[in-house]
Amino acid sequence: MSHRLDLHPDRLLPVEPTIRNIARDLYASVAALPIVSPHGHTDPRWFAQNAPFGDATELLLRPDHYVFRMLYSQGVPLESLGIGASRATYDPREAWRILARNWHLFRGTPSRMWLDWVFAEAFGMEVMLDEATSDLYYDTITQKLATKDFLPRALFDRYNIEVIATTESPLDDLAYHASIMADNASGAWAGRVVTAYRPDPVVDPEFEGFAQNLVRLGELTGEDTHSWQGYLAAHRNRRAFFARHGATSTDHGHPTARTANLSTVEAEALFAQVVRGTASAEQAELFRAQMLTEMARMSLADGLVMQIHPGSMRNHNQRVFENFGRDKGADIPTRTDYVHALKPLLDTLGNERDLSIILFTLDETSYARELAPLAGHYPCLKLGPAWWFHDSPEGMRRFRLSTTETAGFYNTVGFNDDTRAFLSIPARHDVARRIDCGFLATLVAEHRLKDWEAAELAHELTYGLVKKAYRL
Amino acid sequence: MSHRLDLHPDRLLPVEPTIRNIARDLYASVAALPIVSPHGHTDPRWFAQNAPFGDATELLLRPDHYVFRMLYSQGVPLESLGIGASRATYDPREAWRILARNWHLFRGTPSRMWLDWVFAEAFGMEVMLDEATSDLYYDTITQKLATKDFLPRALFDRYNIEVIATTESPLDDLAYHASIMADNASGAWAGRVVTAYRPDPVVDPEFEGFAQNLVRLGELTGEDTHSWQGYLAAHRNRRAFFARHGATSTDHGHPTARTANLSTVEAEALFAQVVRGTASAEQAELFRAQMLTEMARMSLADGLVMQIHPGSMRNHNQRVFENFGRDKGADIPTRTDYVHALKPLLDTLGNERDLSIILFTLDETSYARELAPLAGHYPCLKLGPAWWFHDSPEGMRRFRLSTTETAGFYNTVGFNDDTRAFLSIPARHDVARRIDCGFLATLVAEHRLKDWEAAELAHELTYGLVKKAYRL
Amino acid sequence: MSHRLDLHPDRLLPVEPTIRNIARDLYASVAALPIVSPHGHTDPRWFAQNAPFGDATELLLRPDHYVFRMLYSQGVPLESLGIGASRATYDPREAWRILARNWHLFRGTPSRMWLDWVFAEAFGMEVMLDEATSDLYYDTITQKLATKDFLPRALFDRYNIEVIATTESPLDDLAYHASIMADNASGAWAGRVVTAYRPDPVVDPEFEGFAQNLVRLGELTGEDTHSWQGYLAAHRNRRAFFARHGATSTDHGHPTARTANLSTVEAEALFAQVVRGTASAEQAELFRAQMLTEMARMSLADGLVMQIHPGSMRNHNQRVFENFGRDKGADIPTRTDYVHALKPLLDTLGNERDLSIILFTLDETSYARELAPLAGHYPCLKLGPAWWFHDSPEGMRRFRLSTTETAGFYNTVGFNDDTRAFLSIPARHDVARRIDCGFLATLVAEHRLKDWEAAELAHELTYGLVKKAYRL
Repeated sequence: MSHRLDLHPDRLLPVEPTIRNIARDLYASVAALPIVSPHGHTDPRWFAQNAPFGDATELLLRPDHYVFRMLYSQGVPLESLGIGASRATYDPREAWRILARNWHLFRGTPSRMWLDWVFAEAFGMEVMLDEATSDLYYDTITQKLATKDFLPRALFDRYNIEVIATTESPLDDLAYHASIMADNASGAWAGRVVTAYRPDPVVDPEFEGFAQNLVRLGELTGEDTHSWQGYLAAHRNRRAFFARHGATSTDHGHPTARTANLSTVEAEALFAQVVRGTASAEQAELFRAQMLTEMARMSLADGLVMQIHPGSMRNHNQRVFENFGRDKGADIPTRTDYVHALKPLLDTLGNERDLSIILFTLDETSYARELAPLAGHYPCLKLGPAWWFHDSPEGMRRFRLSTTETAGFYNTVGFNDDTRAFLSIPARHDVARRIDCGFLATLVAEHRLKDWEAAELAHELTYGLVKKAYRL
Repeated sequence: MSHRLDLHPDRLLPVEPTIRNIARDLYASVAALPIVSPHGHTDPRWFAQNAPFGDATELLLRPDHYVFRMLYSQGVPLESLGIGASRATYDPREAWRILARNWHLFRGTPSRMWLDWVFAEAFGMEVMLDEATSDLYYDTITQKLATKDFLPRALFDRYNIEVIATTESPLDDLAYHASIMADNASGAWAGRVVTAYRPDPVVDPEFEGFAQNLVRLGELTGEDTHSWQGYLAAHRNRRAFFARHGATSTDHGHPTARTANLSTVEAEALFAQVVRGTASAEQAELFRAQMLTEMARMSLADGLVMQIHPGSMRNHNQRVFENFGRDKGADIPTRTDYVHALKPLLDTLGNERDLSIILFTLDETSYARELAPLAGHYPCLKLGPAWWFHDSPEGMRRFRLSTTETAGFYNTVGFNDDTRAFLSIPARHDVARRIDCGFLATLVAEHRLKDWEAAELAHELTYGLVKKAYRL
Repeated sequence: MSHRLDLHPDRLLPVEPTIRNIARDLYASVAALPIVSPHGHTDPRWFAQNAPFGDATELLLRPDHYVFRMLYSQGVPLESLGIGASRATYDPREAWRILARNWHLFRGTPSRMWLDWVFAEAFGMEVMLDEATSDLYYDTITQKLATKDFLPRALFDRYNIEVIATTESPLDDLAYHASIMADNASGAWAGRVVTAYRPDPVVDPEFEGFAQNLVRLGELTGEDTHSWQGYLAAHRNRRAFFARHGATSTDHGHPTARTANLSTVEAEALFAQVVRGTASAEQAELFRAQMLTEMARMSLADGLVMQIHPGSMRNHNQRVFENFGRDKGADIPTRTDYVHALKPLLDTLGNERDLSIILFTLDETSYARELAPLAGHYPCLKLGPAWWFHDSPEGMRRFRLSTTETAGFYNTVGFNDDTRAFLSIPARHDVARRIDCGFLATLVAEHRLKDWEAAELAHELTYGLVKKAYRL
């Protein structure tokens, strides 16, 4: 006997009846609002080419490191899931069975919630995933993916996405975005897909292929990217190119939040070391720090909103990195300081009202201690939503509980799904809407907020703030 | 249409009906107890001179960095609020309109709760503050402030304040306290206003004007404050002077909790550097550390309760500091260690039963990890309440949830309002009483505490512990 | 009039009626399951010799540093409780009266819950402990302890303990365990008492008596424990000896989680310094770090599960240590890093599926930031339960709330009581069962989990996972 799969209409809302009733009304008022996805990692090729997505495993399991990291932690070899394996050497149906057999591991995790939504809402499954239903799932999903209704653009429209941002390297030619914009212009498709400027490959001296990346940046821009001034000019050039392809933001994924404000002479000397490949680890860190300040200066000039995503130790598992490469579920958060780290940048630009910097963290201890006090004072700072490992019901609750009293709601920027798992994007936004409405409902029930204020805020947290903060 | 302003009698109490009923009873038993305010920053001049408070902006907006920091974070220039501006160059009515227009920014913050209480309870407002009611607010408040009922002493009496402590520098002549004490003695006024000894200006080598302060300390005491022994004697002298003006406590607002226990020879050598103005940043930090231990020794001798308030990085915003001075909403908490930092002091004095040191933190991660274990062991240590950015409903809940299981209730010391916003003092104590009663009610409802125990504790947390801990 | 002592059947379950009903059902399904106690500090002599426990103070107060630290923090001299005092110089009845008089200090603490259970369930007390009932308590408990029903083996059986692990030094001869095993074999007693290998005395160069311990380790094993290879062989030898006495695990109580992976040449040189007694503090730390990796290597070979318990600063109170010795309630948690600290070990062995390392922490900030992400990825890692100061209702809740979304339930290992307070072991396991059932019930009520899944999980968290994780 299989178990029934259903999504309860009250899921994630507070249980206490008074609060739940308030939360239901708030949620009802925002549940159907369009999705604004200002930061994520979907592939623009999907929307440009509109080709079918492939099989269930290829779409939902193999690329989702939230999912395969859990299986790996319990002894499942990555190869058996098709990670680091070609289609010839692994069986996607068998990989799917491994997921089905281990589905209990995800109890209590957001992956379970997101995927159950995808199964039930996107694919109409009515029984839970387990060993007995594994093939039914695999076949149903794979067959549906071959139909017109499951083409990327059809899903984009069905999902009521108003705009989605992807993330590209400065070296990207943005051809897919250009193609989508052409279709927008011709009326072939109305979906809005914008890029975001993520310069890590040409800003981080320790990034794989940094030296070649610098050369390529020079070719693309016609600037001498081996001189400090030419290098900065090349950034300005590519930022403008990105802006022409819809970008309203940049994104910076540094190991720490450190910033610097060197003199031009010091910066030139440091850059010379970086170009020669002789920069020490400390100099590489200082260079990244200096580049955050440079990027902030450029943002003040060109209006791109700056996102700082610090604090992940990438590729912590050396052998997994060597055998399977980047982004294989082994990025681990680290303690992150903001108060000292951001001071050089803030000393220079912190009081600029036209500069907008959105801060993220993987270190929740910084919410109440550092981030909310900083965002509750500096005109240029806003708080990004609960991120990555904290992009979950409890993570979002902790975010609101820890930041609201000092930073308020209006120094936050709505929700980011930050995902490449396109199918689950509505599920992720839906979780955020439910948690925020539950949080607001609790404030109303404790008489800390009026009902009409909560209704205004529910709309702001879902739709208003993200549009304003990201200038979308 | 304006919105109605009302303060719900159940505000901040837990929503679940069983818990709320218990909480209501507990709260009813302590709601009317007198206010004991053992640590704060009201101006003794108010109570000595009993002059009217001025206009709404002058009283409620301009001096309240909780309020104007939020406005500043959303782009409001400080000058427009009268910060760093003379009465001639800004318009208080217009400043109040800015607050009114932006009142939504405070949703979910404690400032909103405190000020709504002041508006409704102190000034009898019945509509909410917004753009349409701004002038009504400004005029009503400003007019009432000119009446007898709103003179400082009248408010003090109406607020049922049993005793309030202010905070003064060792260089203060305490003339206002002397004047109040004279009025106490003559029967002109019964209000009890005591001082507290805050020696930062003569203990922190990095304090503005430190060298002159040292000279002045010498003049006031007749001691040679440029010799180590004379300097210590001068402190003893001023502490006794403060005690004669009602002080039962000292207060130490250091960047870190670091303590030291140098030999006399080392301390003399360090002090010599400090006096010469040649102390490095590290030596300045070591000197402050040494002075915490010296102050603890003096506390053991003279019975003044010692408060340590570490962990704020003062004046984080360099330009705001340069243009507007200290205390302009740019103090940011930092990670704070206690376990290693306090060890030198505790190795010397930690087992003294007659010494009382009250620890505060801006780093909530230390509650369960460091502070509760330390206070649950050392006879000399007690835990101060949730402080500053954490002096809020959620902050107070986290404090109780994180400290009670290891430190119990009896190693805590009741509530501190720590404010210069005199009008809101009852609102602040009321929030603490409500949150504590809600916390106790939850323990009762979970059968972790008997109802009669919770009733005893509600009284202790409101009134008993603070009197005992501060020797008031 | 004394107050009634009763243990409410719903204690610690969530108060909201929908959740409480679900929690009741879950709890009812696991309340009577046998106790599996895989990590603790009971004395094997008790179970080997089965002698009576002595008086109330001797059993319940004097050895329980959770209890006497709280009394000490409020000014009670340790000597008056029999700490550091012989039976000749203190009066156990009088010591018990001190506890009774100060019983209110424990309101809101887990000690109160555990001891109330012991009083009510183990000893049948029907009134609460206070000054008036002190002698009644003392006499009742002391008399009952002299009866057959309160002999260690009788309690072990009555408590439905399936297996209990003690913790011994490699220098222990395990004679008591051998004696118990002989009784098991002869059918004289069926109770299963296993040891665990705790090598700190011969692994930590800063341990009291380390040099003599090394000599003794050599004598016991016939290995040259002053050579690196002989030293490692001696460990292998004793681990096998422990395994023959039932051990399935090792335990490592280091100041930090630091690991190292030195070359053999480096390790030999470091060990030579350690043996000569010339190792610096940094070298001692490096040696402990290296030994964690060596122990992990041995665990992979011999199958013993490895427990790492880092982050306690032992004997923080210097005078208490000098006058009363170790383990007197003055161990204080410190900030603990795992991400960098564990990397050398994980780089070597992190992907081994047959290695099992259970991580504990006293720094709750690492739950969501470091430990859950690590355990949610590395095949060799599991999360130990909330530990020591966090082994409490709120501590356990924070553990589940902070770890589940990233690590799931199946990367955790059930409950550890970690105690020498034998009488309260059922109370401690009961608290964990109640809190876990309450947590699961909330997930069900929020429609994040099906009721049948919660029932499966309740069994796993109580019984299944601990048996599997500890290979018991």
